[in-house]
Amino acid sequence: MKIRAAIIGASGYSGEELVRLLLRHPRVQIACVTSRQNSGKKLADVFPKFASHPVAQRLKFVEPRLERVLKTLGANPRSAVVFLALPHGVASEWASPLWNLGVRVIDLSADFRLNSAAAYKEFYGQDHPAPRLVGRAVYGLPELYRAKIKRSRFIASPGCYPTSILVPLIPLLRAKLIQPGGIVANSLSGVSGAGRTVQENLLFCECNESVRAYGIPKHRHVPEIEQELSLAAGRRVLIQFNPHLIPVNRGILTTVCVQPSTKSGNLPAAIARCYERAYGGEPFIRLLTGTAMPDTKNVAGTNVIEIAHRVDPRTGGIILLSAEDNLTKGASGQAVQSMNILFGFPETSGLL
Amino acid sequence: MKIRAAIIGASGYSGEELVRLLLRHPRVQIACVTSRQNSGKKLADVFPKFASHPVAQRLKFVEPRLERVLKTLGANPRSAVVFLALPHGVASEWASPLWNLGVRVIDLSADFRLNSAAAYKEFYGQDHPAPRLVGRAVYGLPELYRAKIKRSRFIASPGCYPTSILVPLIPLLRAKLIQPGGIVANSLSGVSGAGRTVQENLLFCECNESVRAYGIPKHRHVPEIEQELSLAAGRRVLIQFNPHLIPVNRGILTTVCVQPSTKSGNLPAAIARCYERAYGGEPFIRLLTGTAMPDTKNVAGTNVIEIAHRVDPRTGGIILLSAEDNLTKGASGQAVQSMNILFGFPETSGLL
Amino acid sequence: MKIRAAIIGASGYSGEELVRLLLRHPRVQIACVTSRQNSGKKLADVFPKFASHPVAQRLKFVEPRLERVLKTLGANPRSAVVFLALPHGVASEWASPLWNLGVRVIDLSADFRLNSAAAYKEFYGQDHPAPRLVGRAVYGLPELYRAKIKRSRFIASPGCYPTSILVPLIPLLRAKLIQPGGIVANSLSGVSGAGRTVQENLLFCECNESVRAYGIPKHRHVPEIEQELSLAAGRRVLIQFNPHLIPVNRGILTTVCVQPSTKSGNLPAAIARCYERAYGGEPFIRLLTGTAMPDTKNVAGTNVIEIAHRVDPRTGGIILLSAEDNLTKGASGQAVQSMNILFGFPETSGLL
Amino acid sequence: MKIRAAIIGASGYSGEELVRLLLRHPRVQIACVTSRQNSGKKLADVFPKFASHPVAQRLKFVEPRLERVLKTLGANPRSAVVFLALPHGVASEWASPLWNLGVRVIDLSADFRLNSAAAYKEFYGQDHPAPRLVGRAVYGLPELYRAKIKRSRFIASPGCYPTSILVPLIPLLRAKLIQPGGIVANSLSGVSGAGRTVQENLLFCECNESVRAYGIPKHRHVPEIEQELSLAAGRRVLIQFNPHLIPVNRGILTTVCVQPSTKSGNLPAAIARCYERAYGGEPFIRLLTGTAMPDTKNVAGTNVIEIAHRVDPRTGGIILLSAEDNLTKGASGQAVQSMNILFGFPETSGLL
Repeated sequence: MKIRAAIIGASGYSGEELVRLLLRHPRVQIACVTSRQNSGKKLADVFPKFASHPVAQRLKFVEPRLERVLKTLGANPRSAVVFLALPHGVASEWASPLWNLGVRVIDLSADFRLNSAAAYKEFYGQDHPAPRLVGRAVYGLPELYRAKIKRSRFIASPGCYPTSILVPLIPLLRAKLIQPGGIVANSLSGVSGAGRTVQENLLFCECNESVRAYGIPKHRHVPEIEQELSLAAGRRVLIQFNPHLIPVNRGILTTVCVQPSTKSGNLPAAIARCYERAYGGEPFIRLLTGTAMPDTKNVAGTNVIEIAHRVDPRTGGIILLSAEDNLTKGASGQAVQSMNILFGFPETSGLL
Repeated sequence: MKIRAAIIGASGYSGEELVRLLLRHPRVQIACVTSRQNSGKKLADVFPKFASHPVAQRLKFVEPRLERVLKTLGANPRSAVVFLALPHGVASEWASPLWNLGVRVIDLSADFRLNSAAAYKEFYGQDHPAPRLVGRAVYGLPELYRAKIKRSRFIASPGCYPTSILVPLIPLLRAKLIQPGGIVANSLSGVSGAGRTVQENLLFCECNESVRAYGIPKHRHVPEIEQELSLAAGRRVLIQFNPHLIPVNRGILTTVCVQPSTKSGNLPAAIARCYERAYGGEPFIRLLTGTAMPDTKNVAGTNVIEIAHRVDPRTGGIILLSAEDNLTKGASGQAVQSMNILFGFPETSGLL
Repeated sequence: MKIRAAIIGASGYSGEELVRLLLRHPRVQIACVTSRQNSGKKLADVFPKFASHPVAQRLKFVEPRLERVLKTLGANPRSAVVFLALPHGVASEWASPLWNLGVRVIDLSADFRLNSAAAYKEFYGQDHPAPRLVGRAVYGLPELYRAKIKRSRFIASPGCYPTSILVPLIPLLRAKLIQPGGIVANSLSGVSGAGRTVQENLLFCECNESVRAYGIPKHRHVPEIEQELSLAAGRRVLIQFNPHLIPVNRGILTTVCVQPSTKSGNLPAAIARCYERAYGGEPFIRLLTGTAMPDTKNVAGTNVIEIAHRVDPRTGGIILLSAEDNLTKGASGQAVQSMNILFGFPETSGLL
Repeated sequence: MKIRAAIIGASGYSGEELVRLLLRHPRVQIACVTSRQNSGKKLADVFPKFASHPVAQRLKFVEPRLERVLKTLGANPRSAVVFLALPHGVASEWASPLWNLGVRVIDLSADFRLNSAAAYKEFYGQDHPAPRLVGRAVYGLPELYRAKIKRSRFIASPGCYPTSILVPLIPLLRAKLIQPGGIVANSLSGVSGAGRTVQENLLFCECNESVRAYGIPKHRHVPEIEQELSLAAGRRVLIQFNPHLIPVNRGILTTVCVQPSTKSGNLPAAIARCYERAYGGEPFIRLLTGTAMPDTKNVAGTNVIEIAHRVDPRTGGIILLSAEDNLTKGASGQAVQSMNILFGFPETSGLL
């Protein structure tokens, strides 16, 4: 039997990616897609690429109103799931009533990723809109928090940049192989990471044949990254994070420079072993070996994150690299992975 | 009156860029272009984009043989200039006899950038092919070595990555505003940086919709960067350098993380003043202010390098950013700029 | 139970696409992949994007030798399938012995698409290498030749351009709604259409920010297109075909101009009805209505071809448009579709 | 001495291109740039790429008001020039008063390209806003109307698509080498052709990895093309015109299919001779010979249009090809070329 899923905010890029993944999910029926601007239109007409799917030919976008959505979730909304693919702030307006009703919620916004309302205010520039719920959601990185996700009914799905940084860093921090200070992370993101936002600097001619950094030094993903790194290190961790916009549709490549905590006998092998222990059986983490380097084209459209590491014998530094699809492992794919865990489905269901 | 110029290796991307710049240079006459594979063909046929220029309609590529080239340089080769746009190793074969003949040489290869034959061997994997000339060339970064260039007749034109890293770093190191340790530089380069090399990983479909790092941790530009940083700092400097390949034709964006040397009262202002002192009147260095960020599309096809800086109040770190065209300021434009200085032409001649 | 499949020439783009599709096909086991240059390497190492699949972690490329391949096809090779993803000419060397052995063959090359060895010689510049087999293969366009494919064991899978032109044209020609004379087809193809051929004009910097026509007026796909159009029209049809190379990885957009055969009362509606009759239930043909226009991004990675039509009231002309993925519906996807028919699998198996 | 130029609507792509060309024009001083949204900002801040130019560091955008602009044109506005880089309809509001004042006007909009107010209404969906001026402007294609441009003070600069179609067709029509009926033109345009319009379908992710036709069968450039072809043929000419959007910034590639008017002995040579006679000395028309094919990358950023022709011995048809930069020869470069003629400057001034 299939569970019912609603996607609130299905017109943006991560909403569209949720639609793509859930349309082919064997255990899910998309019961509802909302969109202010596309309300009344069929999925097939708004997204021609899905037009061959019978559900897309039938299902229409509805206005984003709670009662409207609840009606589509069947007699027992507690057995359904609602994905929030909304801007921060707006997601809270949905999370609160859904929480009260006991509906399982997977929130792709930043609203419930931080355990601190103060950090939220500092980086998002507003009071937290639902402070009562702060700290209630599980941070939906399955490879790190699988057990907690299983027991939860409220998931704060991680940001795209954080995923690409946390996956390579956390096992090394936990194993105390690296120093928690002096971490520098550079990330290069495809333009879909900016969302389907109609603004001049995202026009084709403004992005094509252009490379630029932005959001330095205080990108909104910083507190989320530091929170999780601090938990892993057992002490406060700060990070220097430099995001860049590059002319591809999908993909994030991240390069992290860290310092080893000890002069290990064979540091590269120690890191490899650490990764193997942490991620050896993970279906969505690809540990590269030899001279292979992460490349966004090898993960585009998949839920896989590639990671590799190098040790520089000259400087003694360690370089960690990762590649993911910002819309899949970096957003909607990971959200579906969490949903699979939540509902006891095979974790790779609909994601291979 | 015009000087005569020969371009040895005019089929590659930096050779082609030299052709583009010299065709419109008011004080230069291209006397000779060499190419093994295009020998006998007209410039206009090999590079249709130059076909409207009368010189391109007339001038033919010749085999790269010394006597052949010398013949084209006129009665007094010492008043001519030879550009070497050749792979490392091969450039040396030309530099030695030209040096002996007293011809002015601007070498775009790496052969004479390093003052140490040992460093050359370590990074280029071979004995230096002309050890007698090591240390004879001036490192052709006009904004830093203008006076030396003026007095020289042998220029080792800097690499593309080094230019993008040295220009923002050196004034701060000289002024001791930043620490010489722990420097991390991430650079994103357009594909032309790899040269017109016919290999699978540079095919359109392998680069488009792809982002990847490469050459980590020991890219060949590292010793050149460290040599110049060390000179500026007055002590040995090591650098963590991460180059990446991104799907644009032209452009390098570099993001450098460094630590301040002191708790300055107003570090952003101190850096701005330092840059203003160092580069205030420079025609090819654009000091960005306010929220402006370097963007490769604003320098493509020009000899300009944009630089900006940010100080992170949370971490205390400094982030320096630069954007240049890897083929112009990063290679051929800078070589022409050196030529202008060498011959006493206005430094911006042919470059605006 | 699964059938065994061998892919001869699995290193090129259409071979790689076959691997992608067959790895996820529920009824197929890839038994063998051949490659001269990658022989001995694992699929996972050559194509990291498949590395998460257990078969890719195990299966190694082998040398392209017949006995080597036959051994992998099991006790009864007649129940297996061999895909030939080889250059024209080379495919024949495989087709002949496989035909004699009774193995089912799906040939993605041009060798057996033409019913005339003379036309082959004219367009491919050499005598047909296996003239005895000319005319034996069924032209593998399922929507037009489904019944014949079902009864065959030798499929000549259509070219990418021909598919994009024949699908919109043939129903109209058969229904005599359009004149068979004066047809002009313009096609715009992504660079993967040129194959993974390591040559200068396919380098990233030579294709990016470039648009150009090529192969005019005598592209090799012309005889195949004209053969099928002539069969549909019941008389000899000539076509003016203009292929272009555009900077995308995947996709062909085709625009065909034709003249109506009669002054129909309502030509747009008559064409729509004709398409509905011909393709109404087809899972891989998307008939666009209203103002929707074919767009390669809506079919990339899928086996779908979108078609639309416009009638120009000013000129009286008809414009037909189609969009497909050149590697999927234009090559490997269509080949798998034929395989599904051949073996009695659901036609959409592995293709949704 | 320099003339003064005003650019009305300098924020769009063709306005920006005018700025680029006029900043380096030896005979022109940009006296005024208008922009509603950028009013009060410096050129250098809005377009960082021009920031190295002293004029860009000084000149500020002003509100588009007539008196404001007139003040900047000096004591004798009749010796100045005003470029209108405005949407159709809006351009008329400026053209009328400027005409009355005797100021020379070069209009890049469509408002005065058509000699018929009725055709304007049919294709632009509104009554002509300045019918009194219809037919007063000279169609600014210098290679065809040089003498008229010289005598005029009001130029309607051609559209980008029309330029790419008219230049190859008109000499052949005038020479009666081709039939005026059955002309099919397919054009592929870079995204800058759509202007700096902030709408969803022009976002990077919506254009990248996408190819699509649009505006079929009634693009607004059709009447302008047909008007000029009819004048050349001496009878009414209709055209089937298919524009496409492709993911490059700049460039139009056009492929035109026509029928010869007679069975010429040597049609390719006859066409070549015709082009040579028409365009032999033209600085901005590059007649390709041999196997060379027009390529947008060879004309990007220049005022050159490349043309080539092929005759198909099988069909008897003729294929004409052209490549231009839609913003330069297709818009602002051609406008400057007309200005040069108007003021008696060398025609290539500022354009090489």
